[in-house]
Amino acid sequence: MSRLEETIAKVECLDEDAMAAARDRQARLTKPPGSLGRLEEIAVQVAGVQRRARPDVTRKAVFVMAGDHGVVAQGVTAYPQTVTVQMLANFAAGGAAINVLAGWAGARVVVVDVGVAGDAGPSEGILRRRVGCGTGDLSVGPAMTRDEAGKAVAVGMEVFEAELVSGLDLVAIGDMGIGNTTASAAIIAAITRRPPGEVVGRGTGIDDEVLARKTAVIERALVVNEPDADDALDVLAKVGGFEIGALAGVSLAAAAHRVPVVIDGVISGAAALLAVGLAPRATDFMIAGHLSTEPGHRAALARLGLKPILDLGMRLGEGTGAVLAMGIVEAAVRAMNEMATFDEAGVSGALEE
Amino acid sequence: MSRLEETIAKVECLDEDAMAAARDRQARLTKPPGSLGRLEEIAVQVAGVQRRARPDVTRKAVFVMAGDHGVVAQGVTAYPQTVTVQMLANFAAGGAAINVLAGWAGARVVVVDVGVAGDAGPSEGILRRRVGCGTGDLSVGPAMTRDEAGKAVAVGMEVFEAELVSGLDLVAIGDMGIGNTTASAAIIAAITRRPPGEVVGRGTGIDDEVLARKTAVIERALVVNEPDADDALDVLAKVGGFEIGALAGVSLAAAAHRVPVVIDGVISGAAALLAVGLAPRATDFMIAGHLSTEPGHRAALARLGLKPILDLGMRLGEGTGAVLAMGIVEAAVRAMNEMATFDEAGVSGALEE
Repeated sequence: MSRLEETIAKVECLDEDAMAAARDRQARLTKPPGSLGRLEEIAVQVAGVQRRARPDVTRKAVFVMAGDHGVVAQGVTAYPQTVTVQMLANFAAGGAAINVLAGWAGARVVVVDVGVAGDAGPSEGILRRRVGCGTGDLSVGPAMTRDEAGKAVAVGMEVFEAELVSGLDLVAIGDMGIGNTTASAAIIAAITRRPPGEVVGRGTGIDDEVLARKTAVIERALVVNEPDADDALDVLAKVGGFEIGALAGVSLAAAAHRVPVVIDGVISGAAALLAVGLAPRATDFMIAGHLSTEPGHRAALARLGLKPILDLGMRLGEGTGAVLAMGIVEAAVRAMNEMATFDEAGVSGALEE
Repeated sequence: MSRLEETIAKVECLDEDAMAAARDRQARLTKPPGSLGRLEEIAVQVAGVQRRARPDVTRKAVFVMAGDHGVVAQGVTAYPQTVTVQMLANFAAGGAAINVLAGWAGARVVVVDVGVAGDAGPSEGILRRRVGCGTGDLSVGPAMTRDEAGKAVAVGMEVFEAELVSGLDLVAIGDMGIGNTTASAAIIAAITRRPPGEVVGRGTGIDDEVLARKTAVIERALVVNEPDADDALDVLAKVGGFEIGALAGVSLAAAAHRVPVVIDGVISGAAALLAVGLAPRATDFMIAGHLSTEPGHRAALARLGLKPILDLGMRLGEGTGAVLAMGIVEAAVRAMNEMATFDEAGVSGALEE
């Protein structure tokens, strides 16, 4: 078995016993049943993932995967490709949104160069696990070979497992890569079989003219490449990105190692679709952090059957929405673990009716 | 001038200069403009409240006001009245949801007995600022006198100002009081002039029969008392509660002292309506923490013109939704304060189009 096959085989079911014990505890805590709403559901899910009624989400990390995209040659982005490498330096220096928000959430930031353009790019504070120097232009041919697609997924799995040694109770995934909302919309269109016009968005802020071009580029990409919706590696190879493959790899490894993974926006959502294409049960280990303003994100979450925790009009990527939601997940778990029960507190239960 | 009039007079406008400087900074941070969505708006609002482009939300507190309600005699609640006092003991012991979630948010918990039933109740860890021993039954006459209504509001203002000495950059409000969703729905119906059936909810979990009774009780209360929608103290006196008045007082004092106040669920929403009835500009200092499942909460927020940060199906009260949202407010402010600008990070701006 390949490493990918081994990881997929390790993705098992949620632990129903742990979830039942967690639900029982929720019912005994000093609050009206169900009154903490989604917080109760989230804590029960984390119990099922971690196989214990009182889970722990102390040790957290966000994996920020970076890659470049040949499709930028088609003029589909608001920012130049150089921004990907510049932002890697910003991540390393601690000045980006993800650094600040991960600091707020108490999460380590793990930034990986999975294949930015050129050979340069900063190295300090950045893991170099390059599959290539940016992908090919998906509107004229495949973004990468099938072998490269497998390598990109492997990067995610390996980086996750390396970080696991330092302790991981809860992870988030995020992205950096000029052009990657184009690749993500193509993946989502391919897998959900929706027309590109329904799932394409303005990314970092393009105007109507560029949006029309971006839509046409995705339509062409699907015609030229004919990705097989039932073969996630084929979709990744033909219309994906190195960082998207790596995010799928993190998601698979998290599920295999029973660590809940918080999904960010449209790029992470596309990666989650690929992960679930490879291991359908992986969805049980995912928590949708937020709803991005990118239309494709809503389509991806609907397909995954995930309901976002936050809806704050965010569209930054980097894992920013996911780490914000990590805070809510931590609060949910702490409430379940630390609240007193009716018995402990000597509080009366509901009136008989 | 009375203390209340003085406080109302101190509620001024948001600082437009500070907000303009904050918006300018948001535009220079290393992210596409507007890509942090609501986080950007929240941080700008806090700048306007605190009169500085880079506000500080380090020192936080949640004010949990407790009171009892004579209307419980009508059989409108799922839990017995004794639970109010029992929960005060739970707050003091640190076992309630608000204790855990405030711990997560880094907020001090200030619990005040504004008038629970009986004379007993725990004292350690609880401020005793009792206006009465529970309110009168609002379905047969006024809940309290106008003088008591003024005293309840004053409790909130005074407790806020006492806590201000320890430092307050951001506050939340929450409630405890069996029967108080009935009083809150009555306040909201009176002020928004909606029929009680539109704003009444299931509180801690009543069935259809009790819900019908609760609706009829509120309808009767409005007929019997004829609260004057344009006179907030009249509404509070006739169909309110001691803790609701105190929460209005905290909201007014926060606005007067330029501290942003995060509103919790339907009880806090009713209190916010009263505060805004007394000082219309107070709404600028409010942040809606979450959307409760209680129908009246949506009506209150619509009237206040506030959009909730979170929508997690919560309906616990105590300030739980507000302290969760406090975390998001802190993240929003930290992102604005701590992120690098394009210049600082050497990141390219958007392409010319």
